[in-house]
Amino acid sequence: MTVLELDALSALARQLRVDSIRSSTGAGSGHPTSSMSAADLLAVLVSRHLHYDWNQPDLPTNDHLIFSKGHASPLLYSVFRAVGVVSEEELLTTYRRFGARLQGHPTPELPWVDLATGSLGLGIAAAVGVALAAKRLDKLDYRTWVLCGDSETAEGSVWEALDKAAYYDLSNLTVIVDVNRLGQRGPTELEWDLDAYATRVEAFGCRAITIDGHDLAAIDAAYAEAASSDRPTVILAKTMKGKGVSFIEDKEGWHGVALSADDAERAIAELGGTSSIAVTSPAPPPVPAGWGLGPAGKVELPTYTLGEKVATRKAFGEALVALAARPEVVVLDAEVGNSTFADLFLKVAPERYFETFIAEQLMVAAAGGMAIRKYLPFASTFGAFFARAADFVRMLAISELPIRLVGTHAGVEIGADGPSQMALEDLAIMRSIIGSVVLYPSDATSTAKLVELMADAPSVAYLRATRGAYPVLYGPDQFFSIGGSVVLRESPEDAVTLIGAGVTLHNCIAAAEMLSEEGITARVIDLYSVKPIDVSTLDRAADQTGALVVAEDHYAEGGIGEAVASALIESGRAPKFTHLAVRHLSSSGTPEELLRAAKISAGDIADAARQLVKS
Amino acid sequence: MTVLELDALSALARQLRVDSIRSSTGAGSGHPTSSMSAADLLAVLVSRHLHYDWNQPDLPTNDHLIFSKGHASPLLYSVFRAVGVVSEEELLTTYRRFGARLQGHPTPELPWVDLATGSLGLGIAAAVGVALAAKRLDKLDYRTWVLCGDSETAEGSVWEALDKAAYYDLSNLTVIVDVNRLGQRGPTELEWDLDAYATRVEAFGCRAITIDGHDLAAIDAAYAEAASSDRPTVILAKTMKGKGVSFIEDKEGWHGVALSADDAERAIAELGGTSSIAVTSPAPPPVPAGWGLGPAGKVELPTYTLGEKVATRKAFGEALVALAARPEVVVLDAEVGNSTFADLFLKVAPERYFETFIAEQLMVAAAGGMAIRKYLPFASTFGAFFARAADFVRMLAISELPIRLVGTHAGVEIGADGPSQMALEDLAIMRSIIGSVVLYPSDATSTAKLVELMADAPSVAYLRATRGAYPVLYGPDQFFSIGGSVVLRESPEDAVTLIGAGVTLHNCIAAAEMLSEEGITARVIDLYSVKPIDVSTLDRAADQTGALVVAEDHYAEGGIGEAVASALIESGRAPKFTHLAVRHLSSSGTPEELLRAAKISAGDIADAARQLVKS
Repeated sequence: MTVLELDALSALARQLRVDSIRSSTGAGSGHPTSSMSAADLLAVLVSRHLHYDWNQPDLPTNDHLIFSKGHASPLLYSVFRAVGVVSEEELLTTYRRFGARLQGHPTPELPWVDLATGSLGLGIAAAVGVALAAKRLDKLDYRTWVLCGDSETAEGSVWEALDKAAYYDLSNLTVIVDVNRLGQRGPTELEWDLDAYATRVEAFGCRAITIDGHDLAAIDAAYAEAASSDRPTVILAKTMKGKGVSFIEDKEGWHGVALSADDAERAIAELGGTSSIAVTSPAPPPVPAGWGLGPAGKVELPTYTLGEKVATRKAFGEALVALAARPEVVVLDAEVGNSTFADLFLKVAPERYFETFIAEQLMVAAAGGMAIRKYLPFASTFGAFFARAADFVRMLAISELPIRLVGTHAGVEIGADGPSQMALEDLAIMRSIIGSVVLYPSDATSTAKLVELMADAPSVAYLRATRGAYPVLYGPDQFFSIGGSVVLRESPEDAVTLIGAGVTLHNCIAAAEMLSEEGITARVIDLYSVKPIDVSTLDRAADQTGALVVAEDHYAEGGIGEAVASALIESGRAPKFTHLAVRHLSSSGTPEELLRAAKISAGDIADAARQLVKS
Repeated sequence: MTVLELDALSALARQLRVDSIRSSTGAGSGHPTSSMSAADLLAVLVSRHLHYDWNQPDLPTNDHLIFSKGHASPLLYSVFRAVGVVSEEELLTTYRRFGARLQGHPTPELPWVDLATGSLGLGIAAAVGVALAAKRLDKLDYRTWVLCGDSETAEGSVWEALDKAAYYDLSNLTVIVDVNRLGQRGPTELEWDLDAYATRVEAFGCRAITIDGHDLAAIDAAYAEAASSDRPTVILAKTMKGKGVSFIEDKEGWHGVALSADDAERAIAELGGTSSIAVTSPAPPPVPAGWGLGPAGKVELPTYTLGEKVATRKAFGEALVALAARPEVVVLDAEVGNSTFADLFLKVAPERYFETFIAEQLMVAAAGGMAIRKYLPFASTFGAFFARAADFVRMLAISELPIRLVGTHAGVEIGADGPSQMALEDLAIMRSIIGSVVLYPSDATSTAKLVELMADAPSVAYLRATRGAYPVLYGPDQFFSIGGSVVLRESPEDAVTLIGAGVTLHNCIAAAEMLSEEGITARVIDLYSVKPIDVSTLDRAADQTGALVVAEDHYAEGGIGEAVASALIESGRAPKFTHLAVRHLSSSGTPEELLRAAKISAGDIADAARQLVKS
């Protein structure tokens, strides 16, 4: 770079610092010092390396910038001002205000933000998904850049991600670590030991470059080196929190503290005052002629014979195979594809099947990264192990990214493996995710149809599948919808309604048979859509039968029973009500033994129904 | 070792293989091949290095064996037979059976098992807690041994744990990785690249020793070397899955497959047949005279002045200070101690305060490890970030270990930081944990008292705390209990009941004031115990007022509203009912703006109450 170019970058970096201070002081909160440490890193990036058309954020050839240290949002928003997409007024008067898009931590409400951040350790993992999409799916040369903090490298998810970046040869990924030495409450674990960081990065198969993060020429050279590397690169930049302002630079006690108006004035003066430097990022290449996904083929769902015993997890895998006709569908596995049957997809579309090994956080975040690139990711593992990734699911929902999760081996029904492998909290977790859809089919036909429907759900969609094989209940013409249900048995004489999903629906059907022999007519509802829930069918059942039994292979809290109870009471119904759910720690045993022990077997459902009818 | 000693070890290892086959074939399921790979490792360990009195599993000077690859339970149970605590009959006829203690994955139902395993990546992290307790709290020389699989090193939690093992100089920790090259569905990511593993282990500050995991002398030497190391040691043992039986050894397709009776017979013949070798482990040292915790001092809870504004998170920190009088109380922080106020404990009992940096999984697992050693761990972070550790909370609940979790910054009330920092799913997650207690105090007095009460809860206990400061509602004599509630306003004229906790309780009180001015008398219930819930007070309110409004700063699913709805409908009540909860993605803003936007402000509660009363 020429001296002139260096001077221009230096002036831009100063402006980013000044604007970080101005915006956060204006808001009365925020993280100016964590912004200032990375100002030089961002100034060089957006001026010279990030190929991005700020007026066309959806351009397929744009680079991606994942801002993992989301608390440093003043810096990101100051960049947005410098590139001309956010006005000075918006920056200074709306940051962190109600109704504004410049939130405390960035979200995709802003068109230049791919991913909501603020839960540390997410950015690199999601970026792995973006970079994988670039290399294996889009086959475009855009680069993915991640800015993360040093504190967040304590999160294991960072190492899951770097491991996979190397495993998948993601030379198109550059991670920039802002090693400013100070965390929220004092020095970080490794402080400025860049060699320790570098050793770890290299051990995980990525290239490490250590630099002075305030040396503009060194930053520039490192970015150029990263871009020509044949491995994913992690740039370890030694920086100072609060850099450029003597009374806060590298000082403890300034994490997440906005400067007072007086301090801000002093600081801005020290930085040389305000400015309005505009910068243009390097242009991304044009989109290659003819680039894009090919046309979708016809999705021909598998069909099943009534009464045939098929596990819903198997129907999931077979539906995935059908969905392979849609070129945007991709599949991620956490080394259990032969148990979840996701691996059936591998056989028909290996180029869209990604093995993440046993790293559920990475799998979910990478699915998010692929969703950023407009793919439709299906990520699956045992339902129990999605708890490992609950925080990332939460963050992807805040990002409003459409990811599809399928959790198999639901409930005590799995049998001999015991409680560690049983999903018994998954409905509670997934229902509580904002905007989520939660499905729980009971047979192969409904599974296949719901897998197809969930593909187009707007945000996080979760489908719960059972281990064992149970009879097919529906022919190919049965209608299913998100928010629907099926009334499987119904008559004007119904004295009680039995509600189930998954294995308990089969138990409800068996219970209805038992009751029928005793002269008690029971309605049976297949409540396959747990969220949204079919309130009108539930209301009608309450009105017409006056007594409901809900049985679920899930703990009593946050699952189907509470969803039904809540729906009924809110619509003013008060049927007699019994909620059968798993209420004690389970163990090993056969499925039948464990269902009986949990009191959710057919016999238990029939007993509960009898008691309600008698009472 | 002498040739005779080697021969004896070799015979024991063969027996462990034979018994792993016999038990799993008997059960018809299980993981014999994953057991056989580690048989030599365990034979040497229990015969010569694990100082353990099998007849006194609670002896404080016993070593700990954390069996992280829980699916290899046949091996562990075969060891239990060899040391004489499980009979041949129990091993062969009860494994994986209903009602048996030899479950598919080990649980502490067995007195020699510290921790339920089966969710991979947990063992080392929990062991860090045990080893930390040994070094910093117990000051005893027992050693913690962990057996883990190679596949599980893909979990980030493993690297969080090794990082902290090194950070805390846990030379008393030995991790044994059974590198058998084959995962569930094929080769592992790193297969037999022991150097790659070793480089990572060393980069994270631990000592790596690579050995042939079927060379008994090499195993013995490695264990001895580990015991004399000044660093935590990771022994990387190259092994073969199914070792010792020609037709399964190092073959794909045998993961989690029990041998048929015929195959088992062939395999056992190849291994030399059955045997009944008994082994005695080295004796642990005697417990030093006078060893143990000193007497507890008097816990003098902080007291607060009615009306004084105090954040419940601050009261939590102040209560922790009081609890420091109990020598078994320890505190773990994930680098937010100055936000959660846990760091107040650091000032009074620094030797019992453990900084895990931003590694929530490790924090929770290490708390579990300390609970194994009979300490009472309080682990705290932002409530949102406990989602990161949801799976480990689940596993510690299966282990029935008493851990205390405190999540601060609940709900939209936090304001400007935005949704990434808001705990809005935490009640759903924590309520769904088996055996959990979930508390949500609204003022400083109740917080302090509940922190004291939760210390003695039997399993997982969670307390939710609010960011902002609100008036103290209770004097020091107010009674609180797990499962209780407080009726704050009550009269025979009550036309509606307002139910809240945390910030919404204050809004309920304000709403009641507004309604009172209009001549509507409202009952107000502080529902501080979310699980268990005070059904009788709710029933009475439904019976006496006929109309309930529940307001919560949490998503609508799985929180207070559903808990109340479920309790009421199950006890046959059908009051008019309105559930106010967060139903849309929140944003930045002031607490007041965000509470109003979510429709859980005092005004919204009053509106809902008016409508119910009118209807």
